[in-house]
Amino acid sequence: MSDPATIDDLPTPSLVVERTVFDANVAAMAAARPGAELRPHVKAFKSTALVKELAAAGHSNFCAATVREVEGMAKAGLGTDLLLANQSLDVRRLGALTDDGHRITVAIDSAETIAAAVYGGVTEVLVDVNVGMPRCGCSPDDAGRLADAARAVGLTVRGVMGYEGHLMMASADKKAGAVEASMAELLRAAEAVGGDVISAGGTGTYAANTWATEIQAGSYCLLDTDYAKLDSPFEIAITVLATVISVNAAGWAVADAGLKAFGMDHGDPTWPDGDLFFCSDEHTTLVNPDGQLRVGDRVRMQPGHLDPTIARHEQMWVVDGESVIDRWAVDLRHW
Amino acid sequence: MSDPATIDDLPTPSLVVERTVFDANVAAMAAARPGAELRPHVKAFKSTALVKELAAAGHSNFCAATVREVEGMAKAGLGTDLLLANQSLDVRRLGALTDDGHRITVAIDSAETIAAAVYGGVTEVLVDVNVGMPRCGCSPDDAGRLADAARAVGLTVRGVMGYEGHLMMASADKKAGAVEASMAELLRAAEAVGGDVISAGGTGTYAANTWATEIQAGSYCLLDTDYAKLDSPFEIAITVLATVISVNAAGWAVADAGLKAFGMDHGDPTWPDGDLFFCSDEHTTLVNPDGQLRVGDRVRMQPGHLDPTIARHEQMWVVDGESVIDRWAVDLRHW
Repeated sequence: MSDPATIDDLPTPSLVVERTVFDANVAAMAAARPGAELRPHVKAFKSTALVKELAAAGHSNFCAATVREVEGMAKAGLGTDLLLANQSLDVRRLGALTDDGHRITVAIDSAETIAAAVYGGVTEVLVDVNVGMPRCGCSPDDAGRLADAARAVGLTVRGVMGYEGHLMMASADKKAGAVEASMAELLRAAEAVGGDVISAGGTGTYAANTWATEIQAGSYCLLDTDYAKLDSPFEIAITVLATVISVNAAGWAVADAGLKAFGMDHGDPTWPDGDLFFCSDEHTTLVNPDGQLRVGDRVRMQPGHLDPTIARHEQMWVVDGESVIDRWAVDLRHW
Repeated sequence: MSDPATIDDLPTPSLVVERTVFDANVAAMAAARPGAELRPHVKAFKSTALVKELAAAGHSNFCAATVREVEGMAKAGLGTDLLLANQSLDVRRLGALTDDGHRITVAIDSAETIAAAVYGGVTEVLVDVNVGMPRCGCSPDDAGRLADAARAVGLTVRGVMGYEGHLMMASADKKAGAVEASMAELLRAAEAVGGDVISAGGTGTYAANTWATEIQAGSYCLLDTDYAKLDSPFEIAITVLATVISVNAAGWAVADAGLKAFGMDHGDPTWPDGDLFFCSDEHTTLVNPDGQLRVGDRVRMQPGHLDPTIARHEQMWVVDGESVIDRWAVDLRHW
């Protein structure tokens, strides 16, 4: 395929990013959380090309959810300060990167993950603390003991992290108090652990969380219909472009993007120009009562959940109006 | 990574296929629908390595949902009789394959898709007929007219196809009658269209549909928890392997496969050994009341929906007991 010049040249389904909206989102976050006060989370978009835009906006420390993401970031020259904000029992590929001069820190929350860091040759860790969401992280009561155990085997403990993921979508009136209570647990752990990093938060709490030294957020760059429900300066910059391939006179039209083009855990995508009937593997059936959609028309649908949607695609096409101005490979996918 | 010898050597998350169950599924379908009575649908598993197993079981005609799937099949030497069982407005890449001696047929259901076939250089078509599911396909009343229009511009019309997808999960007592009524529409269209192909069906109706000359089924090879609800000879041959990376004394454990490793449109995956709490991007939290799960344990979860699950992975690892005996690349993904 020759390089697409306009949206009409793009194959479908394709991910399309509105450059002006993306830029506004990035600028709004960089104003609120400049430089190292934000540790953008690459799991949301899995693209080193996008990360380079964030680096240009002043952020140099990043976090990731998989070993492959960290690896890809380092290889793309983005290894100033990379945090694997997740547990892994095999970080040998990260130890090799440390040997090459990249700064890599991993989260630990157990004796086993401490042992994995040592075995893998990673020398810096954060103690991951459970701050209320039933997922990873040790009890705040155990954090100091784990830090001592990590130091005893030669690791450098940089501080703590905790993810108040259960509060991302909390109502505005309850969020501040709930985040404060959650962060009180993290601060208690931080006191026991030592170090100077208190890493927490996300797109839903970046404003409310005034206790963390750095916020781990990624969704704000492109957003989705779920995060768009929050009162924030961020807007949806990403859609899935599809072509109408069939129209039925009984009142529906079929677009060529389906379950393999979307993350569906937050429900159906949104078609801003009308009602969406249902998605199947390769198709989305749209309600078309007046026959306004014709075969060959292009439609753009907003994902319900950004991260698992982008992870289904090879690239994002960056557009300014109708012009395709860039292609960002989604190069950090898989494991 | 050196070649994994046993399941314990596999990275996680990984797709794992039980060879003996897969073989039994393939044999059961080949007994019911031998050779050309089945046109296996590659959209379910998107792997030419798997398709070669079906070819060894006697099937030589295949169908696909995307241009890229057809292209990959032809390039893998599986181009005896390939049907794009879907509409596309740009089939130029398929016309080029036809020039190379592969037999390619595409579905048409409108003047626009007829024009696209001609423009793309594809010479053989099936008329796709809507048989009750609100998706692609013309009205049975329009099928003859479309066939005439296709022939008038030089296309060879091989017959009809229709997908009774709305009946896949119908209860056994209603399925036979409902499929008969649906296929009566297709047979009426077939009479108007001519040709000798009547292509229909799927894993949920392969037994009930005795009117189609060939059945389009793919899910039967590996199955999922949704299709497993049906009374059929097929069993679940595929799981997502994950590692327990964190255990919380409050009663849960966290495995390292989440929303990016599963298709979620049929709901959560199933963990046969216990209860699953929830999935997030990189994690699945499992209920672990008695602390039986420990950090480092491996768990295997069954997908709710096969097709969009496999499309998230680069490969399937084929196992016999604990031994890893093959790797099937998922090489037909994307568009």
